[in-house]
Amino acid sequence: MSTALPVFEDVLSAAARIAPHARVTPVLHSATLDAAAGCDLHFKAEHLQRVGAFKFRGACNAVWALAQAPAAAGVVTHSSGNHGAALALAARTRGIACHVVVPEGAVASKVAAIQRYGGVVQRCAPTITAREQACAELQRSTGATLVHPYADAQVIAGQGTAALELLNAVQGLQVLVVPVGGGGLAAGTAIAAAALAPGCELILAEPEGAADTARSLAAGERCVDFTPDTLCDGLRGTLGAPNFEVLQRFGANVITVSDADTVHAMRLLWQVTKQLVEPSSAIALAAVLAQPMRFAGRRVGVMLSGGNVDLDALPWSKA
Amino acid sequence: MSTALPVFEDVLSAAARIAPHARVTPVLHSATLDAAAGCDLHFKAEHLQRVGAFKFRGACNAVWALAQAPAAAGVVTHSSGNHGAALALAARTRGIACHVVVPEGAVASKVAAIQRYGGVVQRCAPTITAREQACAELQRSTGATLVHPYADAQVIAGQGTAALELLNAVQGLQVLVVPVGGGGLAAGTAIAAAALAPGCELILAEPEGAADTARSLAAGERCVDFTPDTLCDGLRGTLGAPNFEVLQRFGANVITVSDADTVHAMRLLWQVTKQLVEPSSAIALAAVLAQPMRFAGRRVGVMLSGGNVDLDALPWSKA
Repeated sequence: MSTALPVFEDVLSAAARIAPHARVTPVLHSATLDAAAGCDLHFKAEHLQRVGAFKFRGACNAVWALAQAPAAAGVVTHSSGNHGAALALAARTRGIACHVVVPEGAVASKVAAIQRYGGVVQRCAPTITAREQACAELQRSTGATLVHPYADAQVIAGQGTAALELLNAVQGLQVLVVPVGGGGLAAGTAIAAAALAPGCELILAEPEGAADTARSLAAGERCVDFTPDTLCDGLRGTLGAPNFEVLQRFGANVITVSDADTVHAMRLLWQVTKQLVEPSSAIALAAVLAQPMRFAGRRVGVMLSGGNVDLDALPWSKA
Repeated sequence: MSTALPVFEDVLSAAARIAPHARVTPVLHSATLDAAAGCDLHFKAEHLQRVGAFKFRGACNAVWALAQAPAAAGVVTHSSGNHGAALALAARTRGIACHVVVPEGAVASKVAAIQRYGGVVQRCAPTITAREQACAELQRSTGATLVHPYADAQVIAGQGTAALELLNAVQGLQVLVVPVGGGGLAAGTAIAAAALAPGCELILAEPEGAADTARSLAAGERCVDFTPDTLCDGLRGTLGAPNFEVLQRFGANVITVSDADTVHAMRLLWQVTKQLVEPSSAIALAAVLAQPMRFAGRRVGVMLSGGNVDLDALPWSKA
């Protein structure tokens, strides 16, 4: 695991490294959503990335950044979802083993995806301690390298390639809105934006029920003592240490969003764009709709981070 | 209503007429679905057309083909869904009135769409007689021109522009798979394929519970006496007379598909491509998966005809 803070050159290296394996995802527009939001929205469609989420970028960069000898022993991670599937597929592109520690209670469709991509799933209790112990044990027994879901310089640099593509594809963006959980995508975006669009505001969309990033940035130190309570299953992680440092330096702002607003935005995205995005993506549009005055008339980039939804448990079917 | 049989020149005229208003939709690929189907699939993404369905093409062509004087009196149609919304939006692009006769029990989201686009909805009993009477009365009282959902030469020509785009975008297609209900899209596709890809096979995907096209083509005459029983709400119409004639001349083949297979294909499309398509679209992929030997190794164009799903009544949530 690499923990030195990544810089823009690492994002550029990541882009070159993952180019043979990752997709350059499209940027989508919708006149209907522009009218609803009162601004000019440009959606980066990472739900169309391989494994259905931006997570493939970081995982792929981490896997291909390994030297030959450690790579041969494989990789290991803990993940309730998209990162696990992403690392499994990334490992497969290099022909190496991938172990994924998954907590009991993880979304069924995401666990199935890990296995479909060739990852070896090991279950553990749904606590951070249990995950970390299981990971450490696998590292010892197999020699595999830990690829943390977000607190890792190569992962952060890889996630930054999504913003790199978006900022190159759409000129003059004034705001970027990015979901934040552990902060891999958020920190990567901050690094890319600082280099390519220094005047661009970065707004992080965070669930009210997992608002540790908002509290951490306000307090000036990481708040790690909280229990997430949100349906955004991709955003339950605790902001990582390098992620916090990058976001603090950049001066990112946070909008916290209720799950009800996220579900509304998700349904709106499905109906209008016909794109299947997961709650952890839709939260970015929900943030724009929740505070329209902050975005009025501006040119806004929105990260649709993933589309891996459990179709048997859609949030509005519970109502 | 125009009932003369349309020809390829009408499709070309339609393409020119609707170009300022309709979208040129993308063609989508999926290595995962290619592997699942054992052939080379090219999906024409009409769920990304305006109003979320190919229906906008035909409605737009019919509205803009009207002379100034009749156009001023508006248009009228009967439709349980996509055609009604499409005609409402088409009428709005020309600034004329649109009346839509809707049977009780129509999908709620589709009725809402008709109204959102400015159509005036008039309810009637869910029988063909009641619909036709209500339409005739509106024609008398308003002077509006009837634009039939599919048994209309301008509508058929407009629907043919989807295949025109697909055949121009993807060279060497050997098969086209198209859903069939009333036969507007099917007939339009046949006309475009006959001109642009004469060797290309046309396969119609039809619900087992509304298989009048299969029976009509087998019998050599239109079978109009049937009660549809399928969740493909866009495919419950009876094959139109001009539609039948075009399809018979072309020599189209039909694959009938169970609703269970359609639901399976719809779910697969959602999960793999993250594209929200309705059952009446997914049936085309279901037909390919149901008879894989007919498609093995071939280059196949698949019409994803629409994406207007009632999110409160997904077919798998009933299970």
